[in-house]
Amino acid sequence: MSELVGFIGLGHMGHPMARNLIKAGYTLRLYNRTRARADDLIGEGAQWANTPADVAEPGHVVITMLASDSVLESVAGDRLLERLGPGGIHLSMSTVSPATARRLAQRHQQHRVSYLAAPVFGRPEAAAAAKLWICLSGPLSAKERVRPILGALGQGLFDFGEEPGAANVVKLCGNFLIAAANEAMAEAFALAEKNGIERARVAELLGQTLFACPVYQGYGNAIAHHRYQPAGFKVPLGLKDVDLVLQTAAASKVPMPLANLVHDRLIGALAKGRDDLDWSALALGAAEDAGLPTPK
Amino acid sequence: MSELVGFIGLGHMGHPMARNLIKAGYTLRLYNRTRARADDLIGEGAQWANTPADVAEPGHVVITMLASDSVLESVAGDRLLERLGPGGIHLSMSTVSPATARRLAQRHQQHRVSYLAAPVFGRPEAAAAAKLWICLSGPLSAKERVRPILGALGQGLFDFGEEPGAANVVKLCGNFLIAAANEAMAEAFALAEKNGIERARVAELLGQTLFACPVYQGYGNAIAHHRYQPAGFKVPLGLKDVDLVLQTAAASKVPMPLANLVHDRLIGALAKGRDDLDWSALALGAAEDAGLPTPK
Amino acid sequence: MSELVGFIGLGHMGHPMARNLIKAGYTLRLYNRTRARADDLIGEGAQWANTPADVAEPGHVVITMLASDSVLESVAGDRLLERLGPGGIHLSMSTVSPATARRLAQRHQQHRVSYLAAPVFGRPEAAAAAKLWICLSGPLSAKERVRPILGALGQGLFDFGEEPGAANVVKLCGNFLIAAANEAMAEAFALAEKNGIERARVAELLGQTLFACPVYQGYGNAIAHHRYQPAGFKVPLGLKDVDLVLQTAAASKVPMPLANLVHDRLIGALAKGRDDLDWSALALGAAEDAGLPTPK
Amino acid sequence: MSELVGFIGLGHMGHPMARNLIKAGYTLRLYNRTRARADDLIGEGAQWANTPADVAEPGHVVITMLASDSVLESVAGDRLLERLGPGGIHLSMSTVSPATARRLAQRHQQHRVSYLAAPVFGRPEAAAAAKLWICLSGPLSAKERVRPILGALGQGLFDFGEEPGAANVVKLCGNFLIAAANEAMAEAFALAEKNGIERARVAELLGQTLFACPVYQGYGNAIAHHRYQPAGFKVPLGLKDVDLVLQTAAASKVPMPLANLVHDRLIGALAKGRDDLDWSALALGAAEDAGLPTPK
Repeated sequence: MSELVGFIGLGHMGHPMARNLIKAGYTLRLYNRTRARADDLIGEGAQWANTPADVAEPGHVVITMLASDSVLESVAGDRLLERLGPGGIHLSMSTVSPATARRLAQRHQQHRVSYLAAPVFGRPEAAAAAKLWICLSGPLSAKERVRPILGALGQGLFDFGEEPGAANVVKLCGNFLIAAANEAMAEAFALAEKNGIERARVAELLGQTLFACPVYQGYGNAIAHHRYQPAGFKVPLGLKDVDLVLQTAAASKVPMPLANLVHDRLIGALAKGRDDLDWSALALGAAEDAGLPTPK
Repeated sequence: MSELVGFIGLGHMGHPMARNLIKAGYTLRLYNRTRARADDLIGEGAQWANTPADVAEPGHVVITMLASDSVLESVAGDRLLERLGPGGIHLSMSTVSPATARRLAQRHQQHRVSYLAAPVFGRPEAAAAAKLWICLSGPLSAKERVRPILGALGQGLFDFGEEPGAANVVKLCGNFLIAAANEAMAEAFALAEKNGIERARVAELLGQTLFACPVYQGYGNAIAHHRYQPAGFKVPLGLKDVDLVLQTAAASKVPMPLANLVHDRLIGALAKGRDDLDWSALALGAAEDAGLPTPK
Repeated sequence: MSELVGFIGLGHMGHPMARNLIKAGYTLRLYNRTRARADDLIGEGAQWANTPADVAEPGHVVITMLASDSVLESVAGDRLLERLGPGGIHLSMSTVSPATARRLAQRHQQHRVSYLAAPVFGRPEAAAAAKLWICLSGPLSAKERVRPILGALGQGLFDFGEEPGAANVVKLCGNFLIAAANEAMAEAFALAEKNGIERARVAELLGQTLFACPVYQGYGNAIAHHRYQPAGFKVPLGLKDVDLVLQTAAASKVPMPLANLVHDRLIGALAKGRDDLDWSALALGAAEDAGLPTPK
Repeated sequence: MSELVGFIGLGHMGHPMARNLIKAGYTLRLYNRTRARADDLIGEGAQWANTPADVAEPGHVVITMLASDSVLESVAGDRLLERLGPGGIHLSMSTVSPATARRLAQRHQQHRVSYLAAPVFGRPEAAAAAKLWICLSGPLSAKERVRPILGALGQGLFDFGEEPGAANVVKLCGNFLIAAANEAMAEAFALAEKNGIERARVAELLGQTLFACPVYQGYGNAIAHHRYQPAGFKVPLGLKDVDLVLQTAAASKVPMPLANLVHDRLIGALAKGRDDLDWSALALGAAEDAGLPTPK
């Protein structure tokens, strides 16, 4: 008989992740705010729970993949922790602030539940292909137990020790670095365009040479053509994450001028009504500052 | 009989490039400020010229690889251009400003010499391995003629059209993007360190996943360990290039806040006497601002 | 018989303000976390209340002058509002965020109490001399009623309409402008010093000519001499206010790069253990970046 | 018989300054690129010279008030210095870079002519009213000799010692501080406007309280109403000065992030075709970033 795993949150990321676990032979018990998102997975063998707490089985693993710190905090409340109980593991895979992770870890400890931070890098397609990159931090023995689960979800696992917030700090660093790369390309392409050079040609050069890696290739092409739809990750979500970066930076006393710059670009994008564009649309800022024409 | 090519400038980059041309069967006529740098190449069959202008043969190609805009401008003077004459090509491979390239191109035209901008990406080891990436701009027919020469020097050629300054703009964009990536990593690693996370572990994650490309891997490792010596490219040279970026940006009316930020970091590095460190030492700024210990 | 006014918060600012009201003939009923701060005022005729709510008399005015948004929110709770009741006025003079003011105004309305935002500009000496500048916003009739009270506290009153948060926005703007002026002077003085010019001489010129106003004169002199003690307003308080500026800016979708810059300077000051210095010590950042010697 | 003084440059500033010297009893010998600007002054008793050098009388004083470093350098050439000769004084009142001042001072010394840097603060109206503020640096005895002349031009004199570039550094600091104050107000007013507060009302508060000084009052009112015409000092001139600030900062190794910010704002203003607006139009940047409507 296969191991039962609880799973809460069937959004763009959570849904394909849940499917991969079913494929890997786990018995999933699902909860999602809107039940319809679970229908196909139930058809594939998953169980349904009427409340978040009901996905938990004493001493088992519950995975959460939720939209925000506050949703996570309300879901991972006393009822869920009581049901999970001693020996239970909460594998928290959302991007939340390290401060939230630390607070939750403490609360979990009171119920002798292990809190594992396991935020991921990768867009929905990567989730579907089980090609996520996973950062992990938390108690050692719990990490050992979830290793097979994580193996069914990602292509690589990076362990950052036992401090509960560590994996979240690293995840935020990664998102900050993506935003920073986008700002850098936005400025460089504006300079090129103003000098009569085709933006896409510069993106091509970079993506084939010095910066032959997914971030510069994918975002580089989008920014070169100012193509920000369909949005993989919208401006408000990007802003939320950069905001978490800056909150963590302030709490840690780390001045981050480049994080401030991309934060301002994202605020500016919202000020201009770009809520539905991909967050790489922060690149419109540099183009507009230079007086370049941009798509409406 | 092999084609004769003039070559001026046998520095860290020029010397291995000249050798590759000899290996490829070209007859080189060399000039360098200090003759000793040419000795081994003469032993391998190259000729020596007593003045820069003397490397030129009417209608042939002259390559320059020099330290600064002003040196290039003084070398590529009337004497050299008169000797090269109609049909001659000046293949200018140094990193100089687009403004200098444009001024030189005009002066060359008066002597019916073609000016080709062909700045390169790659450190001395890449030059030695004929693995440079080459940006190219200038008159079409001249570009066709030098293609075999460039094939002996690099692993890839990117053509940016006929505008003489275009290749230089792209080269400056590339260097700016490297500096920007370094600043981004510096801030991210400072945040990680302040949260008790090993910097090198974050660099490793990035270099294996989202940013699996030479710039993030090489510089990432250096910055994680604050290892800035031996210097591949020293702070003053980095500052010179970012300064050219900002001059070009001002002339093109492109605000570049991130370029300003790395410019300030490099100025700060000089203010603290870091002239002999690699330019990635700009990363010390973010660490110091956060009150982190840094190596003396 | 004189009007009874409740007064909560006898810190550096609140204490001299309370005394001025006593002098002006008001009967004060005081509350402060530590009672000792009230002793002399009681000697001068003020009454003591055992809880914050007890300072309130139905339909009268209560003034608060507290250290933070959260303290204000806990003090201005249901008990106080019930006692104040219909026709009562809460004259809230602390520097808090506009968001807090708006939230409180709504809660007050449910008890038919008028919430008036009345933050002030001025250091403790100005409070003692009844020379504060007061920003005011809230319901018109309530503003009319408190005019005599405010007249006993300040030298000037600026009305910003009925929107409850407006006065707080303006107060935050003012504090931001002070911090910005300090950063500007810090950079200018560093440039002067590096060119062999006496910093204090530049401060003198500015304060007598273009910038002949209190902020440039007072802070200019302090920054020129790097004299940050005794602290009129410490780094953590300054950071708290700039943080409120940035939170308000984010909520209003206003990119404020200069506010980010001073925010980073203040975070940097804390990172270096400067918690006990005046917030103008943000100026040490520019000096250190330039490699200038600064006092330990 | 009155002392003869040479005067070169009758622009918006130079013309009223020359008139004040005539009024004070000096015999002026004038040169200007277009002679028509001198007509009225000749009617008031001044002499005309056919070349810049011809304004000089051996051992006397020559004043220059010119548009740029390069114009000044071409005017203050060997012919002028030979005519002035030993004991002559060149009172250089334009805003130029300290580097130019230092180079000129050296050249003057070879002719035993004293070079005095005496840049001024004040708009044309202040020049007409002899209310300029004058910064002065250079050889002591020469400074003593020109004191009465400067007394006829300004309301205050600030001596910054003998280093020839010092007065220019201070002048640049002043202009930088004005630009910085404008950026600060631009951000603050954008924040206020987005919160429903009248910009002009905030400007009024500031100008009457914390910042009761000419810069905040004059520019504050202009920026509050986005009124940038007629231009007292156009964007390109402002950019030129901030550019001199940054060049001096780079040469002195002083990172100046706030100077970079205003530099970017001015470049952005040019990118949007605002060449004819007053340089305080840099404030449009903050408004546009916040998505606020601005006048076309």
